[in-house]
Amino acid sequence: MKTGLNFLMAAKRSEMADLHQLARTSALVNTTASFIHQLQRERGLSNLYLASDGRDAVSARHDQLALSQAAELALRSGLEALDTDTHRAAHGARLFSRIAYVMHGLDALPALRDAVRQRQWDAERSTAAYSRLIAGLLAVVFEAADSASDPDISRLLVSLFNFMQGKEFMGRERATGAALFAAGRLDARLQQRLLHLIESQARCLEVFHDFASPLVRAKWAECDSGPALTTLERMRRVLSTTQDDSPLDTRWSRPWFDACSERLDAMRTVEALQANELLALCEGRQTAAAQELAALERLDRTLTQTPCLTSSAAFLEAPDTPLAQAPSQPLGSQLDRAMLELLQAQAQRLQTVSAELETVRASLNERKLIERAKGLLMAHRQLSEDDAHRALRRMAMGQGRRLVDVAETVLAMADVLPVRTG
Amino acid sequence: MKTGLNFLMAAKRSEMADLHQLARTSALVNTTASFIHQLQRERGLSNLYLASDGRDAVSARHDQLALSQAAELALRSGLEALDTDTHRAAHGARLFSRIAYVMHGLDALPALRDAVRQRQWDAERSTAAYSRLIAGLLAVVFEAADSASDPDISRLLVSLFNFMQGKEFMGRERATGAALFAAGRLDARLQQRLLHLIESQARCLEVFHDFASPLVRAKWAECDSGPALTTLERMRRVLSTTQDDSPLDTRWSRPWFDACSERLDAMRTVEALQANELLALCEGRQTAAAQELAALERLDRTLTQTPCLTSSAAFLEAPDTPLAQAPSQPLGSQLDRAMLELLQAQAQRLQTVSAELETVRASLNERKLIERAKGLLMAHRQLSEDDAHRALRRMAMGQGRRLVDVAETVLAMADVLPVRTG
Repeated sequence: MKTGLNFLMAAKRSEMADLHQLARTSALVNTTASFIHQLQRERGLSNLYLASDGRDAVSARHDQLALSQAAELALRSGLEALDTDTHRAAHGARLFSRIAYVMHGLDALPALRDAVRQRQWDAERSTAAYSRLIAGLLAVVFEAADSASDPDISRLLVSLFNFMQGKEFMGRERATGAALFAAGRLDARLQQRLLHLIESQARCLEVFHDFASPLVRAKWAECDSGPALTTLERMRRVLSTTQDDSPLDTRWSRPWFDACSERLDAMRTVEALQANELLALCEGRQTAAAQELAALERLDRTLTQTPCLTSSAAFLEAPDTPLAQAPSQPLGSQLDRAMLELLQAQAQRLQTVSAELETVRASLNERKLIERAKGLLMAHRQLSEDDAHRALRRMAMGQGRRLVDVAETVLAMADVLPVRTG
Repeated sequence: MKTGLNFLMAAKRSEMADLHQLARTSALVNTTASFIHQLQRERGLSNLYLASDGRDAVSARHDQLALSQAAELALRSGLEALDTDTHRAAHGARLFSRIAYVMHGLDALPALRDAVRQRQWDAERSTAAYSRLIAGLLAVVFEAADSASDPDISRLLVSLFNFMQGKEFMGRERATGAALFAAGRLDARLQQRLLHLIESQARCLEVFHDFASPLVRAKWAECDSGPALTTLERMRRVLSTTQDDSPLDTRWSRPWFDACSERLDAMRTVEALQANELLALCEGRQTAAAQELAALERLDRTLTQTPCLTSSAAFLEAPDTPLAQAPSQPLGSQLDRAMLELLQAQAQRLQTVSAELETVRASLNERKLIERAKGLLMAHRQLSEDDAHRALRRMAMGQGRRLVDVAETVLAMADVLPVRTG
């Protein structure tokens, strides 16, 4: 017959199974981050190629495709190894559904590359297709962060996700700025997009900073300075302040692209550091949980061999005072009291863990609210994603409120919005 | 090699595994509710027996013990059947840890019954021991509600949990009122406790009402009226308004007890109705998910047999417009577009589900905050649970704020509270 201790051991085994799953998800996040970086490079080189009518970046793009394909292979084999037959944690459904979307996108890559090679598409269209796949990949990382059940691991995942998302905004900023300079005249629509990307990037990096380890922060502080960044900031200023339809120096297109690329590569080193921290933390947590389980199993063996030591009487008068203050008692009774303390400590720990998790996830909830509000605006007002985001931002600025608060208001109004027909 | 569809099927399998687990947990909740009801009766009869110095309720208590033991056996075999070896969902650890506490309490029941039979304990001490075990059982139901991943099932579990908690406040109100009348003089401390129990009960029943089905609400409206309740309310008024140390009619002790018992039995019928609704809902959800999986599997077979139909090109230009508005296209391309819609619909559905879950769980979060604030006060000011709750209520009333807001403030101050030593 199962005892209370058996259920404590079962609780510990559940935690271990969870940590094991989390370690696998973290490894997947790591592979995803590498692949996204290669895709970002491929997107950039494809743009150079298309914008130059096939003159520039021909061999660089060719070499990059091999790197991208190697990273894709690594991701695919990671996904292939996931256990899709048996049944695991609650977040499985959401994670798998995100992966399904990514698989569909991976299958479309060859067609995209052909369209670029034959220059059937322009840079904007190619960028949009690459960006869609990268967004799908980031959604996988988001789910991983949102479903982690260990607060410290969740913290690192939230930090990493926000860094990756910020890096992707940088990647899209590179494309947008390059297009602006290449056109030789300021296009107000692209300028708006650029401002939006710079702002979103800053917000992501703030959250990253809040949750990152001191080591990672130090590494980031190192990367987030230097002459390259100064040049970049100067060009950003030009792009942000030039009036609509005023001339831009087309010769800046390439230096802009190179400065942005340098920054993306620097970000990749910070990203890799975070991914390593994450894997190390997962390993440490698994070792600790295994040791805790072993201690419970030893206690179980002792009690099974000497059943006279077990008693449950302490439960009846569960003390409000801790064990240290209890008067000395016979051994059986002491063990009983120790067991009760163990149970209470465990319950307390799990409560603390779930409170910490809530805190960490709050930052993800903001993103969810904003995404949902955007989705609502897109559906009801037939807006593009960019326009929906702009509409939210306009409301926020107009009302002097935070974006997330405006998003909540929009969602609260969902019931009174007219249903879109046809 | 796995396809996007394979991962969609995996997502569906995860959902099914989750629903299966949820059905088992719901069955456990049902057994727990029956057992709690028998414990509440046993606690009441034990009080009558103790308060009458062993003259009253001798045979009724004897008969009740058999009923309690049968219900305990059913619960134990339900717990025994839980899979504690293999590794399941994230909430496993919390649920198992609550069950471990309950097991410890079940093992202490024989000692409690002996102490009552031999009248070594008074009614208050016996009530406290029974109430501690019932609180542990309710915590199991709370975890079940908090970990459910289906919003509709979660809604019923939240409704049922609040009803069960309200019923338990009623059970403790019965004991407190009986003690007040039996003493023949109004005891201000017991009166405070009574007021607290009535208020907590009302709050639980409000939440229950918000989340219950129309059928259950109608059944409850039927039970929540009638002459017995009028009598009960009259006696409540007497107990609430009598001044400290004023006389009370001891002859009202038994009618009070009987009126409360009648109400508890009526509540049990509403509880049983809810438990049945819950089991039926779990079954319906499982059937629906199985059908959805079967449909995906059929689609998978079709695509495997005719691979020429598959294409992923639609991903590259994922339309902001729905399928219906797309121009007619060759079959492969239509299927591709249909797949993309399937993927987007699935992602949308999971997002909606998780938003609804958040809403339902918000009501549980309030309870968690209050419990945590109470725990903090108990630890730092060495208060009993009753006193901690009273302290919170006093702050709330003094500041004209909601209990949950005061709890949040207390928790926010945790860092500045002195650490208790020794």
